[in-house]
Amino acid sequence: MTAANATHAPAPLHLLVSHAAARALQPPLAELIAAGRLRLIHLPQDGEAPLDDAQAALIDCAYFSRDLHLTPSPGGAESARSFFKLLERAPRLRWLQIFFAGVSSLTVTGRLQARGVQISTATGAAAEPIAQSIVAALLFMSRGLLHHIDAQRRSAWEPLRDAQVPPPLRGQRATIVGMGAIGRETVALLRPYGLRLCAVRRSSEPVPGCEQVVPYAELASVLPHTDWLVLACPLTEATRKLVDAQALALLPRHAHLVNIARGEVVDEAALIDALRERRLAGAYLDVFEQEPLPAASPLWTLPNALISAHTSGARTDYDEQVHAIFIENLQRMAQGLAPTRLALADS
Amino acid sequence: MTAANATHAPAPLHLLVSHAAARALQPPLAELIAAGRLRLIHLPQDGEAPLDDAQAALIDCAYFSRDLHLTPSPGGAESARSFFKLLERAPRLRWLQIFFAGVSSLTVTGRLQARGVQISTATGAAAEPIAQSIVAALLFMSRGLLHHIDAQRRSAWEPLRDAQVPPPLRGQRATIVGMGAIGRETVALLRPYGLRLCAVRRSSEPVPGCEQVVPYAELASVLPHTDWLVLACPLTEATRKLVDAQALALLPRHAHLVNIARGEVVDEAALIDALRERRLAGAYLDVFEQEPLPAASPLWTLPNALISAHTSGARTDYDEQVHAIFIENLQRMAQGLAPTRLALADS
Repeated sequence: MTAANATHAPAPLHLLVSHAAARALQPPLAELIAAGRLRLIHLPQDGEAPLDDAQAALIDCAYFSRDLHLTPSPGGAESARSFFKLLERAPRLRWLQIFFAGVSSLTVTGRLQARGVQISTATGAAAEPIAQSIVAALLFMSRGLLHHIDAQRRSAWEPLRDAQVPPPLRGQRATIVGMGAIGRETVALLRPYGLRLCAVRRSSEPVPGCEQVVPYAELASVLPHTDWLVLACPLTEATRKLVDAQALALLPRHAHLVNIARGEVVDEAALIDALRERRLAGAYLDVFEQEPLPAASPLWTLPNALISAHTSGARTDYDEQVHAIFIENLQRMAQGLAPTRLALADS
Repeated sequence: MTAANATHAPAPLHLLVSHAAARALQPPLAELIAAGRLRLIHLPQDGEAPLDDAQAALIDCAYFSRDLHLTPSPGGAESARSFFKLLERAPRLRWLQIFFAGVSSLTVTGRLQARGVQISTATGAAAEPIAQSIVAALLFMSRGLLHHIDAQRRSAWEPLRDAQVPPPLRGQRATIVGMGAIGRETVALLRPYGLRLCAVRRSSEPVPGCEQVVPYAELASVLPHTDWLVLACPLTEATRKLVDAQALALLPRHAHLVNIARGEVVDEAALIDALRERRLAGAYLDVFEQEPLPAASPLWTLPNALISAHTSGARTDYDEQVHAIFIENLQRMAQGLAPTRLALADS
């Protein structure tokens, strides 16, 4: 048995990993190592000798964990640079797990994809908190609370009156752009409110809980009936400036926008005009064309805009979630299976 | 048949009602009138002759609809005064439907109860929007958005860091004080978030969806484990200053408060101290000891307090909801059944 197994056992994977991630994941990694399926190649820390070309040539998979990226932790950005420089010297690299969700052709991950490396994202790791941020903002605006934030700035007691009194959510229409993990979780969380949901996605494949599904190219057809426009899509050539001046003009004046996707999905100048002229009732924005959002941006002071700093997905247990995704994928790789959550090459 | 029915038919009800409500409810009222079960006594409008004592003596039921109360509509407050003065001259009055939810012994409705008049409130008419306001505020604070409102006031890009990063809602504990229509709707809406729910109510009768139920007198026992304290109870002698300095001191420092009940349920001065000294992480307050909240109140400018102007239940279809409750009750009265949603006499 043992001899037969040894004959057929695949070669062990050589994983490039940070010291911090290797420590955090010691038990499951040790198990794979003990089974002869895995060898670790640690990213050298400050003061350690760099890897030579022979060592780099061994690397066939890699984990870009959050500790390599964290700024302003000392050397944070430097660790990320060393990590990706090393991957460029790793000709056998075939799989990379990253700790974040978005991949674009313009970035280093895009260049790796271009040479055939499969990239697993952490899509879904923050889906629950981001969907909760979406629902928080939607309910908040639907209860007239943007008005109250503004009144509070002026220490003014201003009960909602006349046109400010909110209509019931039940029966209103929410259009959710993007049906990845965040979009699907948002659909689930919005169900109890009796909203009529429309999904906008690459295909027009039906989505449970949504009464309508349209592809990105047909977004315009649903905007005139949209009370709540929620952007939860990746940034791709199909979604760049998807919500431009023309799209904004199609929304009813009482409509609200929620954007937790990417700033570039919206034409920000057109959005500022629409909010300022009250052609759009309000917006919750977590992402912007330029981040950090410049202090001079009119968005900061518009009374109908609620601004956060690209942290709609912040959660104390984010690393645990990503580590679990990585380990699941690594175990699949060790068994000769394809990893999950593969990023599509941008087209 | 007709003769027999005539013999046994109960005397028609004499309903005091505003012209506006009678117009809005024309079809169902006309049906009862045609069946010989109802006669209308309209509250005289400006310029109409007042009702004499003989007419007042006929009134056995009355509807205090929102149009009689609305200020600053011309004569709004005056209509309310005339209405209740007339009820004091109506010795046969036995049932009153009011358009709001709260009744207290100190008010005119309390005096009517003292002489044996049954009062149906509109409890539940705003339960859905108020529960949505509660969930909006809870999710909003749980996603760190109080911090972002404060940062936005300063045009400051401040991603959540370290201790600001919110823990997942799943597994946190919410204590909901009051299990009327609002409390029950809140329990239902909070279910998808995996919170552990505790209900605080008059009895310790179990509540579906809550893992723990304690009576008001035992609130203190659950506060040290409470992450979210939601006040949705009526103001009674049992709930007046229920959340005082001592109760606030029992809450963890990371806890948040939501009060959409009545200002007097909380010791406001103690709350201000707790928020200012960060012994409480944040609060959403829709009600206050004194309303309108005075412009000089420190609550307006505390960065961890979110203030609205007693409009957590505002909804465009509120009148329709109350009208439906009234008609249901009137039909029950006309059939000799007891009306629903009776206010308890305050004890």
